[in-house]
Amino acid sequence: MLPIAKSLKQGKRGILERLDAGEIVIGDGGFVFALEKRGYVKAGPWTPEATVEHPEAVRQLHREFLRAGSNVLQTFTFYASEDKLENRGNYVAEKITCQKVNEAACDIAREVANEGDALVAGGVSQTPSYLSCKDKAEVKAVFRKQLDIFMKKNVDFLIAEYFEHVEEAVWAVEVLKESGKPVAATMCIGPEGDMHGVPPGQCAVQLVKAGASIVGVNCHFDPDTVLETVKLMKEGLQAAKLKAHLMSQPLAFHTPDCGKQGFIDLPEFPFGLEPRIITRWDVQKYARKAYDLGIRYIGGCCGFEPYHVRAIAEELAPERGFLPEASEKHGSWGNSLSMHTKPWVRARKEYWENLKPASGRPYCPSMSKPDGWGVTKGARELMQQKEATTEQQLKELFQKQKV
Amino acid sequence: MLPIAKSLKQGKRGILERLDAGEIVIGDGGFVFALEKRGYVKAGPWTPEATVEHPEAVRQLHREFLRAGSNVLQTFTFYASEDKLENRGNYVAEKITCQKVNEAACDIAREVANEGDALVAGGVSQTPSYLSCKDKAEVKAVFRKQLDIFMKKNVDFLIAEYFEHVEEAVWAVEVLKESGKPVAATMCIGPEGDMHGVPPGQCAVQLVKAGASIVGVNCHFDPDTVLETVKLMKEGLQAAKLKAHLMSQPLAFHTPDCGKQGFIDLPEFPFGLEPRIITRWDVQKYARKAYDLGIRYIGGCCGFEPYHVRAIAEELAPERGFLPEASEKHGSWGNSLSMHTKPWVRARKEYWENLKPASGRPYCPSMSKPDGWGVTKGARELMQQKEATTEQQLKELFQKQKV
Amino acid sequence: MLPIAKSLKQGKRGILERLDAGEIVIGDGGFVFALEKRGYVKAGPWTPEATVEHPEAVRQLHREFLRAGSNVLQTFTFYASEDKLENRGNYVAEKITCQKVNEAACDIAREVANEGDALVAGGVSQTPSYLSCKDKAEVKAVFRKQLDIFMKKNVDFLIAEYFEHVEEAVWAVEVLKESGKPVAATMCIGPEGDMHGVPPGQCAVQLVKAGASIVGVNCHFDPDTVLETVKLMKEGLQAAKLKAHLMSQPLAFHTPDCGKQGFIDLPEFPFGLEPRIITRWDVQKYARKAYDLGIRYIGGCCGFEPYHVRAIAEELAPERGFLPEASEKHGSWGNSLSMHTKPWVRARKEYWENLKPASGRPYCPSMSKPDGWGVTKGARELMQQKEATTEQQLKELFQKQKV
Amino acid sequence: MLPIAKSLKQGKRGILERLDAGEIVIGDGGFVFALEKRGYVKAGPWTPEATVEHPEAVRQLHREFLRAGSNVLQTFTFYASEDKLENRGNYVAEKITCQKVNEAACDIAREVANEGDALVAGGVSQTPSYLSCKDKAEVKAVFRKQLDIFMKKNVDFLIAEYFEHVEEAVWAVEVLKESGKPVAATMCIGPEGDMHGVPPGQCAVQLVKAGASIVGVNCHFDPDTVLETVKLMKEGLQAAKLKAHLMSQPLAFHTPDCGKQGFIDLPEFPFGLEPRIITRWDVQKYARKAYDLGIRYIGGCCGFEPYHVRAIAEELAPERGFLPEASEKHGSWGNSLSMHTKPWVRARKEYWENLKPASGRPYCPSMSKPDGWGVTKGARELMQQKEATTEQQLKELFQKQKV
Repeated sequence: MLPIAKSLKQGKRGILERLDAGEIVIGDGGFVFALEKRGYVKAGPWTPEATVEHPEAVRQLHREFLRAGSNVLQTFTFYASEDKLENRGNYVAEKITCQKVNEAACDIAREVANEGDALVAGGVSQTPSYLSCKDKAEVKAVFRKQLDIFMKKNVDFLIAEYFEHVEEAVWAVEVLKESGKPVAATMCIGPEGDMHGVPPGQCAVQLVKAGASIVGVNCHFDPDTVLETVKLMKEGLQAAKLKAHLMSQPLAFHTPDCGKQGFIDLPEFPFGLEPRIITRWDVQKYARKAYDLGIRYIGGCCGFEPYHVRAIAEELAPERGFLPEASEKHGSWGNSLSMHTKPWVRARKEYWENLKPASGRPYCPSMSKPDGWGVTKGARELMQQKEATTEQQLKELFQKQKV
Repeated sequence: MLPIAKSLKQGKRGILERLDAGEIVIGDGGFVFALEKRGYVKAGPWTPEATVEHPEAVRQLHREFLRAGSNVLQTFTFYASEDKLENRGNYVAEKITCQKVNEAACDIAREVANEGDALVAGGVSQTPSYLSCKDKAEVKAVFRKQLDIFMKKNVDFLIAEYFEHVEEAVWAVEVLKESGKPVAATMCIGPEGDMHGVPPGQCAVQLVKAGASIVGVNCHFDPDTVLETVKLMKEGLQAAKLKAHLMSQPLAFHTPDCGKQGFIDLPEFPFGLEPRIITRWDVQKYARKAYDLGIRYIGGCCGFEPYHVRAIAEELAPERGFLPEASEKHGSWGNSLSMHTKPWVRARKEYWENLKPASGRPYCPSMSKPDGWGVTKGARELMQQKEATTEQQLKELFQKQKV
Repeated sequence: MLPIAKSLKQGKRGILERLDAGEIVIGDGGFVFALEKRGYVKAGPWTPEATVEHPEAVRQLHREFLRAGSNVLQTFTFYASEDKLENRGNYVAEKITCQKVNEAACDIAREVANEGDALVAGGVSQTPSYLSCKDKAEVKAVFRKQLDIFMKKNVDFLIAEYFEHVEEAVWAVEVLKESGKPVAATMCIGPEGDMHGVPPGQCAVQLVKAGASIVGVNCHFDPDTVLETVKLMKEGLQAAKLKAHLMSQPLAFHTPDCGKQGFIDLPEFPFGLEPRIITRWDVQKYARKAYDLGIRYIGGCCGFEPYHVRAIAEELAPERGFLPEASEKHGSWGNSLSMHTKPWVRARKEYWENLKPASGRPYCPSMSKPDGWGVTKGARELMQQKEATTEQQLKELFQKQKV
Repeated sequence: MLPIAKSLKQGKRGILERLDAGEIVIGDGGFVFALEKRGYVKAGPWTPEATVEHPEAVRQLHREFLRAGSNVLQTFTFYASEDKLENRGNYVAEKITCQKVNEAACDIAREVANEGDALVAGGVSQTPSYLSCKDKAEVKAVFRKQLDIFMKKNVDFLIAEYFEHVEEAVWAVEVLKESGKPVAATMCIGPEGDMHGVPPGQCAVQLVKAGASIVGVNCHFDPDTVLETVKLMKEGLQAAKLKAHLMSQPLAFHTPDCGKQGFIDLPEFPFGLEPRIITRWDVQKYARKAYDLGIRYIGGCCGFEPYHVRAIAEELAPERGFLPEASEKHGSWGNSLSMHTKPWVRARKEYWENLKPASGRPYCPSMSKPDGWGVTKGARELMQQKEATTEQQLKELFQKQKV
């Protein structure tokens, strides 16, 4: 059996050092979904004030991902931009400043990263300001506010993630590059490209030209769809003779039935997604496929729990030479990669590989028809507004849904 | 909107005081499954040495259940009996004594219970000794060893849970009653009764006669099946003119296809159960149905995460007059029981109630054919043995499976 | 390979001669469903005026069943009682007399039976008169009218089929027995018993006591459920120390989700049942299981097409020593029972046996929730009325459905 | 209610007269599948010797399609080419000459066509000769042999159908055009194009240039896929500024999971397709969609039974001004297009439109993974051979399948 990884607390190498050396970097999983189930994040706003309100819960989740094999701990700053914290009836900003939320996120991530061989990445994501048609300078100012904190707290590198429009993603990368730190950039798009119709290959080219050293896809789609999209990015970069590391952080939900905007449009979103949750075996297949495609930064997004991340680390243990700490409490493929000369063990791997799990839901269909409103930046329904959605606005939305 | 419950740290009333007064007591969820996903419990042995190895992880999970509304924190002592800790290649007992595991479990549960209005329940469960045909005195001695620790740590009451044979459950209740503390007893059986064919109604009668004040069902089946079984227990008690409080702690997995031994026999057990996970809306229906059936101790077992427990507390908030703390980050039925005079809000409740979630798995069936070996106490395959299962033994098992 | 059966046109033995000798008698399939799809029967009234209007279509279907292996051709007189032909807006009786419909049915069946080794059975089924609470004498008079024609046309034996109430079935048997010919009687019930709650075992006992030599179940449920019900009949007869031959004529639709009244209550009835149609392999399993259960009169009902009947004859060809004519155009189990020493042939049988056919319908569930109005004899909605259902009556029905 | 169509026996207008006038022409359904179920065609060879062996069965099926609304009766000459009748162990040609099969087919079709307002179309389809790499002259000679008979029997027009390679289809059209009669040509391809990769739009252009007046798609895919492919043909013709009438004759099976070669590659083919059968309501949607797309020759292929064809005629009855004869025994959309001012009737249409029929198969998946061997013209396995496939050849095929 492969050895369990030792905790490395000092002399850690940077993100590009690792990737340039051909190493596999394992990302972490999705904080907002995991902490929503644990009771600390509100679905709808999805904001990260838990870093101040319940630091022990955030710290514990970081620890679990570290233990599962994550080499990167992203600061829990998703949707922590000032404009988001006070949007649509989410009055967090009145009680807790944007600055405090971001600072606490950095401190917690650093504290846990110090317990093992993980780097801290400061993250920014798409803004209500952009959707509300604020201009480039205004949107960049929003990112810069978060970046100031990341610099003060000296994160190891930066991630611009969850962008539906490459235009905004490019602005984010440009701001983050001002720091001099390595920048990764991922978009939440599928093979059809961004909301303005820019194909994945071109998105990748623009991001690399803007300064990203690592590009890829996160969220919105299942592993298969995300890998298909990263492949298109890879091909776009090759065609443009550009070089960058590739990164994938998909959902832990099956989404074969999704359209352009991914799981957001499913009727099950966000409170009925359970039957779509992927198994650890699905994750192992994803990790192998991602690796074979040349991706070296391999993680997850919404739905990825610690055991999903561990499955990445276990699948790629032969390449890396070690297992994560949490494998003390787990046997890969049903206990047995180490004994794979025995036929019955190989048989067991096949068993799990081939299992078609039943949903136990004989009144449920296999697929859903996703909504597809086709609205994007500038649409009235997407505009930033401080107060909660009014009843009149809700009625209009229901009307729209029925058409 | 109903108020959020205040933390009550002193002057808590006991379990029977509450139930006798007609109050609803909300149980907690399943530790071994939740902590397996978080990386601290090994599937297979399912033993709770994390109380010593990683107390922060156990503490955090208790806290999440407390925050979700649990009025009882069960000590994480499932399968913590001495004979289990050294069974079948699980050499925990060599490093950590049974006593330490149980003591740490009590300390952690008490620490968190002190943060809110929750009681601590010491729990025992079925033993390898019984399955290996040890006699009554030997089996009772195993329970007594755990009880000694519970008494030393002064838990508030005791639970004998997860028994497949009423005979063993009765022995457990008899031991626990020696303490003078209230005793609850639940069996992991379905409507067909225990492994020896004793119907649920008779099981309930025997448990009450042995001294249990609270009886019911936990684990192995989904909410619908568990409630059907508790209903049979209730009818058995009525026929025998006995009184007891009723309790239900089902799985958070749909199991319409299960036979006598429940989800253990499903091919998906334990690593492919994801598509069966119940939604928060399923839980709300369960809580309402349990309440209507007269059950007042309502909780969950394997698969129940904090958001599932919160769903019990939210569904029964009108009866209880308050919401749990974690509802600060959640709106019942899509944000809105409080505003139910508006038709569009009622419409939304109906939306979630009627949603038939898709699995996104078009190559998977709806149901599985469970294994059904029909072995029980005394069968060779169930015998206690210290060393790991040998290859020869495994081969025989595979052989058997194919028949 | 087994020989194809020769046509036997003379010297045919009677139904009881065959069954008493332990031979397998193969029934035919369902006329109303097959002819509805061919354009000659109207769903709703389901009456058999096609015997007069389009005799060539009826003749052809008889011929196909004969060719497929049927030893019995039932006269197409289902719902040909006078009270049915003029019920609820079905004004057939105004143009074509009951007598003509029945006579033509006998003539066509006899003509085709003469082409091979098949008997003609005159059939009666449940009446609107019974549901409308007409008394015993009136209901018996309805049956007697049909019997007079069967006697005049000298059918070989008689079948009372498709009865939901054993009381009415017994009356039918009593009338048919007046003829001196052998009588078979089948009810369209499941394991729960008849609409008045009489269990299958008791139904069988009453039918045999009334004079039936053959008893069993037809229609309303899939093969598995029908066999389960016939098994209960068999046990009832054994307990009562009565002897009778057993008969099964199930639907060719899967109905695991049906309640007491069978497929009538499914939302898909009658125009959306396609995905439930059983395959020829399902039929082979049914034929084998029926045979093993001791049933010797094995046929089908609604949904059974000629290729389904052929599957019965092919499955039981080893026992019978010959194949049906239509097997000239078919190979059992994928071409090959005859060559079963070759492993790849056995493999092919297994292939078809184990195939879980996909529906190609990813937006459809596996099961339906059947309606369950629970109305029976005497309920207002079931009353006989000559004119079509009025709009007001329809509105009331829709109202009822929604509750 | 619209009137039932009167039989028109004389003065029938030709196919192009009708289509040029903008009329809807309704095709017929699939003979080989329907007659296989009735016991007259052998799956595997799928040859039409029933025209000689059992003319009454062929005649009856023609009659049912006529009654259901078909304006074209295709001679049952599918796979009636000489090279097919003696291929791979199907020794029909030894007993019945190719000429007799084709002549009988013409006579039967004409006899029935004379009973109503239908034309007779002589049909040719792809040949083993082409797959075995015979040259153009040889392949054309095969078609010409059939054409000679069609001319002698004076069919009304000609159809070249079921071609996987546009090259062979063009050869067929060229031969058929020699007759001076109108020629329709359909390919059994999907949106990916023919087996050599020629896209649908180019196929259409080549067929029209070769002389076809009507082009389209038949067989291999479900209605949705066929319509998608015909749309590509339409666009190809428009881009090439060519004019032709459009035609669609899809399967009556759902095939969302099919790859390039359609339902042939499904594991369920041909004996487990039942759960995929489309309902009459699916057909009505298909007919409407085809009409809206500008298709005016609308029929069906394998799986289409008379009630499916009737559903086309009923859906388009408002445009045509009359209903088919078989509608005497049917009410559209549940009895009621004629009364559509009543809300409850409209409600009923919606009921059937929205029904998601359950399969009653909880152990079956929704979709299958089709085989995809990717072999085409010239591949060894496709070569013509007179004798049956040998065991050795079968073993190689099984081997191949497993890879």
